[in-house]
Amino acid sequence: MIQKKDILSIRDLTKDEILFILETASSLKEILNRPIKKVPPLRGKTMVHLFFEPSTRTKLSFELAAKRLSADTVGISKTTSSVTKGEDLIDTAKNIEAMKPDVLVLRHSCSGAAHLMARAVKCSVINAGDGTNEHPTQALLDMFTVKEHFGTLEGLKIAIIGDILHSRVAHSDMIGFKKMGSEVVICGPGTLMPPSPEAYGVNVTYNLFEAVKDADVIMALRLQKERQGTQLIPSDREYAATFGINRDVLKDTKPSAIIMHPGPINRGVEMAPDVADSGRSLILDQVTNGVAVRMALLSILMAETGGQRQ
Amino acid sequence: MIQKKDILSIRDLTKDEILFILETASSLKEILNRPIKKVPPLRGKTMVHLFFEPSTRTKLSFELAAKRLSADTVGISKTTSSVTKGEDLIDTAKNIEAMKPDVLVLRHSCSGAAHLMARAVKCSVINAGDGTNEHPTQALLDMFTVKEHFGTLEGLKIAIIGDILHSRVAHSDMIGFKKMGSEVVICGPGTLMPPSPEAYGVNVTYNLFEAVKDADVIMALRLQKERQGTQLIPSDREYAATFGINRDVLKDTKPSAIIMHPGPINRGVEMAPDVADSGRSLILDQVTNGVAVRMALLSILMAETGGQRQ
Amino acid sequence: MIQKKDILSIRDLTKDEILFILETASSLKEILNRPIKKVPPLRGKTMVHLFFEPSTRTKLSFELAAKRLSADTVGISKTTSSVTKGEDLIDTAKNIEAMKPDVLVLRHSCSGAAHLMARAVKCSVINAGDGTNEHPTQALLDMFTVKEHFGTLEGLKIAIIGDILHSRVAHSDMIGFKKMGSEVVICGPGTLMPPSPEAYGVNVTYNLFEAVKDADVIMALRLQKERQGTQLIPSDREYAATFGINRDVLKDTKPSAIIMHPGPINRGVEMAPDVADSGRSLILDQVTNGVAVRMALLSILMAETGGQRQ
Repeated sequence: MIQKKDILSIRDLTKDEILFILETASSLKEILNRPIKKVPPLRGKTMVHLFFEPSTRTKLSFELAAKRLSADTVGISKTTSSVTKGEDLIDTAKNIEAMKPDVLVLRHSCSGAAHLMARAVKCSVINAGDGTNEHPTQALLDMFTVKEHFGTLEGLKIAIIGDILHSRVAHSDMIGFKKMGSEVVICGPGTLMPPSPEAYGVNVTYNLFEAVKDADVIMALRLQKERQGTQLIPSDREYAATFGINRDVLKDTKPSAIIMHPGPINRGVEMAPDVADSGRSLILDQVTNGVAVRMALLSILMAETGGQRQ
Repeated sequence: MIQKKDILSIRDLTKDEILFILETASSLKEILNRPIKKVPPLRGKTMVHLFFEPSTRTKLSFELAAKRLSADTVGISKTTSSVTKGEDLIDTAKNIEAMKPDVLVLRHSCSGAAHLMARAVKCSVINAGDGTNEHPTQALLDMFTVKEHFGTLEGLKIAIIGDILHSRVAHSDMIGFKKMGSEVVICGPGTLMPPSPEAYGVNVTYNLFEAVKDADVIMALRLQKERQGTQLIPSDREYAATFGINRDVLKDTKPSAIIMHPGPINRGVEMAPDVADSGRSLILDQVTNGVAVRMALLSILMAETGGQRQ
Repeated sequence: MIQKKDILSIRDLTKDEILFILETASSLKEILNRPIKKVPPLRGKTMVHLFFEPSTRTKLSFELAAKRLSADTVGISKTTSSVTKGEDLIDTAKNIEAMKPDVLVLRHSCSGAAHLMARAVKCSVINAGDGTNEHPTQALLDMFTVKEHFGTLEGLKIAIIGDILHSRVAHSDMIGFKKMGSEVVICGPGTLMPPSPEAYGVNVTYNLFEAVKDADVIMALRLQKERQGTQLIPSDREYAATFGINRDVLKDTKPSAIIMHPGPINRGVEMAPDVADSGRSLILDQVTNGVAVRMALLSILMAETGGQRQ
């Protein structure tokens, strides 16, 4: 049971709440393998998605999750929105709330945008990524994927490689995996490491081979070129040579180790194509699980609220 | 009962037709307060929305209105449309009509666009704003909001403040409230007043305090910067000082007077934030009522037509 | 019966398969004339549309076709997609496939894009236009329109006028009509003719009057200005004078000849307005038939697959 209005961050969720979400997702995932992938529990409920940053997979994933539970979806994206007319985020939120949706899904380039919106409205808000802060639904699908594969998260070693500093995925994953009893090591160029890794309780190394040596999960992050103000790495080629996951890097790793990536992959930069497409890669499972996790969140929030709270 | 193919303007509607729409909206509004906000009357009907100007709330409001009555919705917006390939509006209309929709909802930057389209097609057309001409669904939701609050429109004094000249909302509201027996006074800078206010039967003043003194409804308009070709006001700051609605302005008004705004608000320009968020403000009620009014129009048009006329 | 995963080109379809599609479309078209234009066969199925080129009618046509069969639709268009982040087409395809759609509909500016995607995924792919290669659903609706009008395709003379070289519609139509036993003549400026018309088994003429003289179907193509790299015709006016279909051109044609155009029309360039709007024009019937043909394809593919193959 979760008594929450919103899903804004992994930081806000307890271990038990995370487990409940993963178990709910597990029971809903089965629907995705049926010929008719639609069930009625959220019929008459409405999800409004607000994507103020470009997105392919996250937006589609939320829309499909909603439709498979028979909810209605409507949404706006930055280019078609009157946010370009200077309307601010809280006004947008309050206006959309007045149209009586059940859940708002927000992606925004400002860290904290989802928290701001959640405080402004009575309906539920799901953070679909806020600036460089958190991307909780991605971390939940990552934890789901690892738990489904290994049966547990306790005691596993998770290596997260890349631009930790700018990655909201990394922030949510570090917090989530630590909370669930995993050990986390982060690795990347010094310019892309967070200022206080000890605050996350994670280990740091600048040596890729050391990071992956005993890892159960090797998770490469997307080089967030669009979030890096200035040039923080010498070149893509040099990054690939030092931190790219390729067959050489995998030689001295556990045979049972799995490969993950939040996508979309810069092939040949953070990961070699043959690694991304190998049998050890669970990258596409992550995508499928993303739909299941979002179905879980939508059904938990809309069931809890019994429609909009007011 | 309304025997109309289209809803193009308030000018075209009789007092009785307006009353019928408001009563229908009133009975449908109750659905918005249910946990399951969906009813089946328009199942199998299709609304196509064509927004050739950016819009957040009006587009979402129409989509939600349609979905809550179980209609299907599809649409195009300017950036994804082959209107950029030189296809003209009538051809677009006739082509979409050939796909057998039940209602077209059109927003367009040219005054008269909805009338042009309505003459070209047999299916119903709703004008969601055409240039500087009319925005009938906004005026209907404004009248709904005032009538719901005061119980009547007859004899009320409505003060409309701001850029009357470029505001399709103001044009529709002036015609509508006058038709329903309200008294209307308009107020704003001389450069933003219509050339022949007497044609609307409204009073004009350039003094804000005089405009609001006996008003039951104080409606501020959005400064339509995007519609003003040249600089018609010295600055936002000077506009705010002369025509902005703030606590000082409200001091000598009726205690029962309500505050309205079609949104989105330029906070601190046409209205002070504390006024917009005060207990006298019905601005968010307007948004909720917009969904109810559009549900009413969709159900009236689609019920009347019994599917597409042909 | 059709045992195909994908609809990628007319070239891949046999005469019997084309006939089966046209017959299925014929039985589904009746739904479009009902007051309630919705039937349940694809309830719980999902169509994902990916339009990487602007489109009004084709996108709406597919969406309406899906919704009228009760399928769910979600989609992305170029501007809102992370394809702008460098993700390549195959990765996009595999990621969307992982969300378990039943059919992907793809429009892309690269010839061969749909074939590439179809090889990458297990779910069905429909080519909604790939570069200058093929536009099979347009050819199917063209053949449907001609067959519905004349009762047969066998022995009819089809004149296709305009920019054959850059037109994927022309390529699909030449292959399709020839396959069904029609005679095809193409006509246009030498710079816009294909290099090897004999490969299509079609006749070529540079004289418009000769092309249309005995034609049963006179099909003008859209001048694809956006696909012509350099200036291949002197001017629109000269093109209209030499290859535009007007009343003069029609004087010496069969009284039974019909006029077609894939739209959107450049009125006054490839066709005079009075010809486009005349009683001989089936241009809007083509649009209606497009919905029926796409309903047929969706129901054939989703019924055949029984959900996603895997």
